[in-house]
Amino acid sequence: MPSKSVLEKIAKRLRIHSLKMTTAAGSGHPTTCLSAAEIMACLFFHEMRYNFKDPFAWENDEFVLSKGHAAPILWAAYAEAGIIPQESLLDLRKISSDLEGHPTPRMPWVKAATGSLGQGLSVGVGLALAQKLAGVKARTFVLMGDGECAEGAVWEAANAGRELGLSNLVAIVDVNRLGQSDSTMHQHDLRAYAKKFQAFGWDVYRVDGHKIDQILEALAAARKSPKPKVILARTTKGKGVSFVEDKNGWHGKPLKPEELEKALAELGPMPEVESRKYVKSREKGKTPRWKDSFDFELPAYKEKTATRLAYGIALEKLGKVNDRVIVIDGDVKNSTYADRFFAAFPQRSFQSFIAEQNMVGMAMGLSAKGFLPFVATFAAFLTRAHDQIRMAAYSFSNIKFCGSHVGVSIGEDGPSQMGLEDLAMFLPIPDCLVFYPSDAICAEKCVKEAAKYKGLTYIRTTRPATPILYSAEEEFPPGGAKVLRQSENDVVTVIGAGITDHEALKAYELLKNEGINIRVIDAYSVKPIDAETIIRSASETGGRVVVVEDHFEQGGLGTAVALVLPEKSHWKHLCIRELPRSGKPEELLSRYGIDAKAIVEAVKSSV
Amino acid sequence: MPSKSVLEKIAKRLRIHSLKMTTAAGSGHPTTCLSAAEIMACLFFHEMRYNFKDPFAWENDEFVLSKGHAAPILWAAYAEAGIIPQESLLDLRKISSDLEGHPTPRMPWVKAATGSLGQGLSVGVGLALAQKLAGVKARTFVLMGDGECAEGAVWEAANAGRELGLSNLVAIVDVNRLGQSDSTMHQHDLRAYAKKFQAFGWDVYRVDGHKIDQILEALAAARKSPKPKVILARTTKGKGVSFVEDKNGWHGKPLKPEELEKALAELGPMPEVESRKYVKSREKGKTPRWKDSFDFELPAYKEKTATRLAYGIALEKLGKVNDRVIVIDGDVKNSTYADRFFAAFPQRSFQSFIAEQNMVGMAMGLSAKGFLPFVATFAAFLTRAHDQIRMAAYSFSNIKFCGSHVGVSIGEDGPSQMGLEDLAMFLPIPDCLVFYPSDAICAEKCVKEAAKYKGLTYIRTTRPATPILYSAEEEFPPGGAKVLRQSENDVVTVIGAGITDHEALKAYELLKNEGINIRVIDAYSVKPIDAETIIRSASETGGRVVVVEDHFEQGGLGTAVALVLPEKSHWKHLCIRELPRSGKPEELLSRYGIDAKAIVEAVKSSV
Repeated sequence: MPSKSVLEKIAKRLRIHSLKMTTAAGSGHPTTCLSAAEIMACLFFHEMRYNFKDPFAWENDEFVLSKGHAAPILWAAYAEAGIIPQESLLDLRKISSDLEGHPTPRMPWVKAATGSLGQGLSVGVGLALAQKLAGVKARTFVLMGDGECAEGAVWEAANAGRELGLSNLVAIVDVNRLGQSDSTMHQHDLRAYAKKFQAFGWDVYRVDGHKIDQILEALAAARKSPKPKVILARTTKGKGVSFVEDKNGWHGKPLKPEELEKALAELGPMPEVESRKYVKSREKGKTPRWKDSFDFELPAYKEKTATRLAYGIALEKLGKVNDRVIVIDGDVKNSTYADRFFAAFPQRSFQSFIAEQNMVGMAMGLSAKGFLPFVATFAAFLTRAHDQIRMAAYSFSNIKFCGSHVGVSIGEDGPSQMGLEDLAMFLPIPDCLVFYPSDAICAEKCVKEAAKYKGLTYIRTTRPATPILYSAEEEFPPGGAKVLRQSENDVVTVIGAGITDHEALKAYELLKNEGINIRVIDAYSVKPIDAETIIRSASETGGRVVVVEDHFEQGGLGTAVALVLPEKSHWKHLCIRELPRSGKPEELLSRYGIDAKAIVEAVKSSV
Repeated sequence: MPSKSVLEKIAKRLRIHSLKMTTAAGSGHPTTCLSAAEIMACLFFHEMRYNFKDPFAWENDEFVLSKGHAAPILWAAYAEAGIIPQESLLDLRKISSDLEGHPTPRMPWVKAATGSLGQGLSVGVGLALAQKLAGVKARTFVLMGDGECAEGAVWEAANAGRELGLSNLVAIVDVNRLGQSDSTMHQHDLRAYAKKFQAFGWDVYRVDGHKIDQILEALAAARKSPKPKVILARTTKGKGVSFVEDKNGWHGKPLKPEELEKALAELGPMPEVESRKYVKSREKGKTPRWKDSFDFELPAYKEKTATRLAYGIALEKLGKVNDRVIVIDGDVKNSTYADRFFAAFPQRSFQSFIAEQNMVGMAMGLSAKGFLPFVATFAAFLTRAHDQIRMAAYSFSNIKFCGSHVGVSIGEDGPSQMGLEDLAMFLPIPDCLVFYPSDAICAEKCVKEAAKYKGLTYIRTTRPATPILYSAEEEFPPGGAKVLRQSENDVVTVIGAGITDHEALKAYELLKNEGINIRVIDAYSVKPIDAETIIRSASETGGRVVVVEDHFEQGGLGTAVALVLPEKSHWKHLCIRELPRSGKPEELLSRYGIDAKAIVEAVKSSV
């Protein structure tokens, strides 16, 4: 065990690194590093157990730097621990370096990208839960800022930590009193934070965050408590450098070279200590192994079935052959049909209550440990977690999203419940697969494709039951499209997905009766879009294309098709162009011009 | 004052209405109405003061049904109060009726759309703040569900209520123990909720939510407390109908006609009481009047200036001529430059700390009372409030959003801080104006145009300083575009906005030196897009178009242009196609292929 004076020396080394790095980079947040130096020293060189050669060892304690702008001190700690060379620290923020301005898992010890504040505690919940599920003794530590405690997501995570009984989760709040633009809400009132965390069911310890012995004592006590716990550390922003200490206006500002000189003179010479000697690892346990197949039985449907129900059925089947699958729900499992998985695999099912942000943050943590989280709610409510979804992309997470109840086709519940911008949220994300199944067979196959893919995926499901279009053997690879109807004298290509495929098929029949043939394409893979099929069909129908979708005009299927179509002069786009209202599904499809009748009219006016 | 027995009768009438309405509609949430009947009776027919003829009277108390799925009982209360005819109740959820499945302001007494849970308290904060700013005695009541208290946004609002000292804000939580799919987190443990609200600085009252006298007593006590307060009402979901009372599986399910018969038999005949007699109004005060001009002085810039700074400067100027302007910040005012307004108009500036959801929810409340809220943060962090922004659209709110620090051009801070999907978030919203200024003059004019427009607007600002392109007199109407460079022998149209306009202008010079002329278009209005100018230019340059933007591929300027372009066979789209990293702005513009060099190459490969 390192003595108090050793940890003080390491803290000073971390401070000096942080200052030099940010001055060298010409940007960054040194003062927010300085407040956390003793905390980081105690965590990395006393409390935490990790094998510094293996960032993925199950016996490692995990660490999340929720206050991501303190990245320099995290990189410094890794350097001191022998994980990266010390000289690499001066490459901070360079395009050639993985030591980015805010942490990303380009540096493999980082389990989730941080820098959008108030998300780290949810990630920590996911990591700690993963450790429990794997049956390892390891723990998870989350270093938070005081400013970010204003984010509601923190309190969603606090609820989850308590509900899940995560005794292996330790949060530390670096209460340095100053935010970016001003003082924080509670400044140095640790009691205010304590009351909140206690009310949310956490054990609370209060310390002077610059006193090694107080930090160690709290960490020791925290080891014994059966609850999730938080250490509230009263600190000084800029600690150790007199002219920036506790001063507003120094957030996100590196010292100028001459200021750095002055600061280093104040801090004194770099203390001589071989920090890495103090890194402790835990005994290697058995690496958990799980059933990990994606081959579940073929779907079997005869009657009209909602794609959301097929999603639930597929999820249950997948659960049987794959133990890595975990399902998290936001109190709508009887609507998304995740409830089937809940019933079959209660140990791998987690109720997040109505807290979408935490649901996604948790999934990031679980994914980082190799689990395969499926997260579903109403598509409209996934917007609640848009920032977390964005950060999940930067975390290279392997999360499978499903949004149910999309579009005006949900009917009477009204606009607040209609996902009409969900494609616009998922399509911009690089490498995110986006599926929009139109029947139950396709929905099941999309679940399989999503599970097999390593990365973010989104499946858009529909509320009403829809007819079966495909045979159980049909495959639905990412990037494909299905030609549902074609002939040699098709005059228009109609491209739909989900509910609008069925309207397109009705339009096909109506038009056929009038001697007009149309090509009908099911763009079940909205991303990647099947450019080849679309371009070929468009060309074969004289460039006449009608895209019809249950989504707002921009950012959905229409824009995805518009991007790849070379020739749009005979293009028509049927979509939701105004704020919709309550009504019967068929009334709404009609009113907003995306039903069979509207398609017939669009086709006729095209030829 | 109505006696206890009168209020009991009114409660029963509300129950009977709610049951009949939902059975007639064939969908809806009767059981969640039944739990709130006594609370609604006490609020609407005893505690609240409102002029039932004027939904916009300043002396009215305001009411927000945060648990929006209880809409039927809200409509029933309006009917009992004489605001709408009782017979209209049976039109619930019809496409012809404004009594939608969840409340929207199509019904003018509704001040914000609800139905995405956990947002109503923030709206209430905004309404109560507006009442204080207007100096009226009126109060705001928010009826919440217990399930939605799991949403972090609730705790952001709780912080705001305390920080803003909103003694005129009263929340009531209908603790009916059951969520949609299961029991709630705390079930009937009122103490758990009490601890939380107390920790967040609220006065708490606990009552049996079916006992009129207890509710009235709590409401009376609440009148005197100087804090925001919450009444925790223990209730029974489905109260009054034995076969649904406190039973899981009845959420969002109307009674079948034969069940309704049974329920009505249990409840007994509709009590005879003329509820509207008990509606009390407050004496009409003076209607607040504000300076309400949009004519601020012309911009004056010579040097390179960041559009975000110009935004801040314009906001301050606007503040001088318009008292309705309110600025809310999420602890980044020194980055968005909202700080200039804070310094000039502290009484109309509100620090929301790092709580973007509440920032937008508050703005919805302020907007509903006629204020003109400007809300700015990093564009990336507006995603945190995507659900609130979505609901602001359904609330017909008049909110002016600004997202700063967009794209890879922010540089070293890295991807978590880069707004690369913000256009994809705002463009789908029907009737939302989207501006993306490239210089300080345009940025100021966009602030003016945004302020003048009634509805949602979004202004995308850039971190680095950019050269001045326009004269102070130039106008920037919504739906316009500027042709920055043109000649009679332009071979390609290059369409940019914001930072990429400057890269396009550099490319113009480079190409000109090689004898190649290009048309350069500044698409400062991304929505509506200037289809006419774009189509004409494209046609004049042989259909050759290069769109260049600092945004992900889908959902931004490129897709907006792709939607309107008839001919895309010579189209090139330069945009961010992968997850970016930290680096210098110019390095990142180069690496991701959106700098002058990339434009030059795209142009050359087009001709």
